[in-house]
Amino acid sequence: MPQEIERKYLLKEDSWRESASGTIYCQGYIATKDQTTVRVRIVGKQGYLTIKGPSVECSRLEFEYLIPVEDAEEMLNTLCQRPFITKTRYKIKWGDLIWEIDEFHGLNEGLIIAEVELTDPEQQIELPPWIGEEVSHDHRYFNSYLVKHPFSEW
Amino acid sequence: MPQEIERKYLLKEDSWRESASGTIYCQGYIATKDQTTVRVRIVGKQGYLTIKGPSVECSRLEFEYLIPVEDAEEMLNTLCQRPFITKTRYKIKWGDLIWEIDEFHGLNEGLIIAEVELTDPEQQIELPPWIGEEVSHDHRYFNSYLVKHPFSEW
Repeated sequence: MPQEIERKYLLKEDSWRESASGTIYCQGYIATKDQTTVRVRIVGKQGYLTIKGPSVECSRLEFEYLIPVEDAEEMLNTLCQRPFITKTRYKIKWGDLIWEIDEFHGLNEGLIIAEVELTDPEQQIELPPWIGEEVSHDHRYFNSYLVKHPFSEW
Repeated sequence: MPQEIERKYLLKEDSWRESASGTIYCQGYIATKDQTTVRVRIVGKQGYLTIKGPSVECSRLEFEYLIPVEDAEEMLNTLCQRPFITKTRYKIKWGDLIWEIDEFHGLNEGLIIAEVELTDPEQQIELPPWIGEEVSHDHRYFNSYLVKHPFSEW
């Protein structure tokens, strides 16, 4: 069963930027039902269609497919709720794990979230020094929530 | 822009069965928002993920992707609302067009719908003798509606 197991944190300082280079992500939500989400994302010249199930502890069922970027653009423009989520994603290796740091733009400017993907919900993690409060269980930090309630309005 | 343009009809008699052989379809809906639907379908050993936009006249934006049948089974079992739609689809060539006749099963048993896909909403159609009332604009015949309101409850 394709599971996404991840933990999310806020950042307490900026030293992670020293070794980071980022990539722009643009994404929107075609539909959400309860906590099931259907997301379309563009990264560079590639489109992605992703279905995620409800979150249980730190785990969600996840299915992701590559799609033509033209399809992704058209779905964003015609089917997705505004505003889109735009963010710069930085990937930083720390110990054995890859941390993904999302710096949001637009109406979510000012929000920065670090995520780490795990193979087991009980897995022990060595936290980098720039990691702050854990927000894994706070639904406000779901990207699908940020579409409806942007960070600038919190 | 990938458009699905189709017209739907009820059937007035059964002579179409003479030359028809059918295939079983099983499908469910991961999410619907207004008239935008996210459908997962299994036909034989192939899975399909299909996004359709709102219907305007006889046209809908449609994106369809092949996916592994194992993914489709898991999405049906874990993310889709019950009951699933099961139906036998028959394809019949009539003149220059292919007619698709869906004979529904389960809670929708007794419902048979013929659909024809067009290249232009204004296209003239030669109607086969077994075609009855047109229901293109009746939302009750949307498969996504039948999940929530099966034909046996009409």
